[in-house]
Amino acid sequence: MRIESITSAQNPKVKDLLALQEKSKERRKKGLFVVEGRRELLHCVEAGYKPHTIFFCPEIISTGDFDEIADKCDCNYIEIPQHLYDKVAYRGGTEGVIAELHCKDMTLEALNLKENPIVVVLEAVEKPGNLGAVLRSADASGVDAVIVCDPLTDMYNPNLIRSSIGAIFTVPTATATSEETIEWLKSNGIKIYTAQLQDSKWYYDTDMKGGTAIVMGTEATGLTQCWRKAADAHIKIPMLGKLDSLNVSVSAAILMFEAVRQRNS
Amino acid sequence: MRIESITSAQNPKVKDLLALQEKSKERRKKGLFVVEGRRELLHCVEAGYKPHTIFFCPEIISTGDFDEIADKCDCNYIEIPQHLYDKVAYRGGTEGVIAELHCKDMTLEALNLKENPIVVVLEAVEKPGNLGAVLRSADASGVDAVIVCDPLTDMYNPNLIRSSIGAIFTVPTATATSEETIEWLKSNGIKIYTAQLQDSKWYYDTDMKGGTAIVMGTEATGLTQCWRKAADAHIKIPMLGKLDSLNVSVSAAILMFEAVRQRNS
Repeated sequence: MRIESITSAQNPKVKDLLALQEKSKERRKKGLFVVEGRRELLHCVEAGYKPHTIFFCPEIISTGDFDEIADKCDCNYIEIPQHLYDKVAYRGGTEGVIAELHCKDMTLEALNLKENPIVVVLEAVEKPGNLGAVLRSADASGVDAVIVCDPLTDMYNPNLIRSSIGAIFTVPTATATSEETIEWLKSNGIKIYTAQLQDSKWYYDTDMKGGTAIVMGTEATGLTQCWRKAADAHIKIPMLGKLDSLNVSVSAAILMFEAVRQRNS
Repeated sequence: MRIESITSAQNPKVKDLLALQEKSKERRKKGLFVVEGRRELLHCVEAGYKPHTIFFCPEIISTGDFDEIADKCDCNYIEIPQHLYDKVAYRGGTEGVIAELHCKDMTLEALNLKENPIVVVLEAVEKPGNLGAVLRSADASGVDAVIVCDPLTDMYNPNLIRSSIGAIFTVPTATATSEETIEWLKSNGIKIYTAQLQDSKWYYDTDMKGGTAIVMGTEATGLTQCWRKAADAHIKIPMLGKLDSLNVSVSAAILMFEAVRQRNS
């Protein structure tokens, strides 16, 4: 383990860290992203991500936590004082550790599917927080993969990582165009069920026991035409209230757990 | 219609408005709460809430919107210039209307239940945003009532109103102690299903066709003992991932829509 000590906010390594947090362009250019907190870092490493550099603040991190991380992460370590940690900590630091890790291949080809998988497809989700919430429910329901088509946010956005509470690392995830994803689903024999209000049947009357892709659009504009055409069935959740509105991550969770229910009950 | 014009932030009516937005104590004392935006106000009035005072900014609100509101709301109107509106608008104003309305009776006795109702009970939800999200799903699933036991937040908190996108007005809601609620449920013949991990069965193996109360605790500490003892059944959602975690509003939505599914499929 190599430990370096930095005390100045002007140090290029500190500036690089801030740029990686703030700019998706930097993340793409360097192939690195940032994770904050002991638990998130360990989820990430367990999921096979390789750490590049770990910043830690000895005034905050406990010896036990540091030893656990050091045991699992062979990379550069940089010790920073509290005033500097407070500056770089995205969440406002309680755990004293921030890491730069190498991005992973998020292609469709890199996904490993078991038989009769459940796949969630999100077309152009606008808000990182919504995508994070979908990933959290995808982890809980044991979904096999989440595919984001034409993403408007990058997958290593700090808000996404935070709202997913680490599910972005535990759930196999890919990004691709809608056309590529449709072709990939069809060639893998996975049925395409699009969530939409027009010409659709109740989700619970749809057989989700075979390979199932649950496809959702944005809250504002719904799904594009290519998905509606490619669908094996259009499905909808009954809207029985006065507001006619359900959060996209809540809708996704209801559909994912219906697939789980059908397989288990 | 009485229209008054105010231009100073020092005017006592403006100060009262700000106090009502910021302090639950003020809301309790005056029996008033604040709603911002045309759509929210109209939901509120349709649900039977009585407006007390409406602040509007003629530079922002459209004539059509103002006429629609004026047609439905017989109360005091106060015209304020944009610089003042920007100061009092909680959300950052796009619609030019903020209203003070009279609070309603949120007792158990005020709830009107139909036969075999679905009721959601939340014990001490900490975050207004979570409660708002539960209410939003409760509206969508057509749940008959949401009861909050020993609330840590007041029901007219601006964050709650905003995150519920108005469902706090469309869904019949009550607050009471856990003991009162248990007694009320039992005397109405409503089965108590507590969401908990210990000694529980899968939610989808639980019959929710009769009168059903879905009872949930906090994400951190779960339900208190009195609920566990009062339960007709303990139910749980399978946790099939690595993080063992589901947002309380997502869990609530999965359970509510399971009750809907059982009644309709």
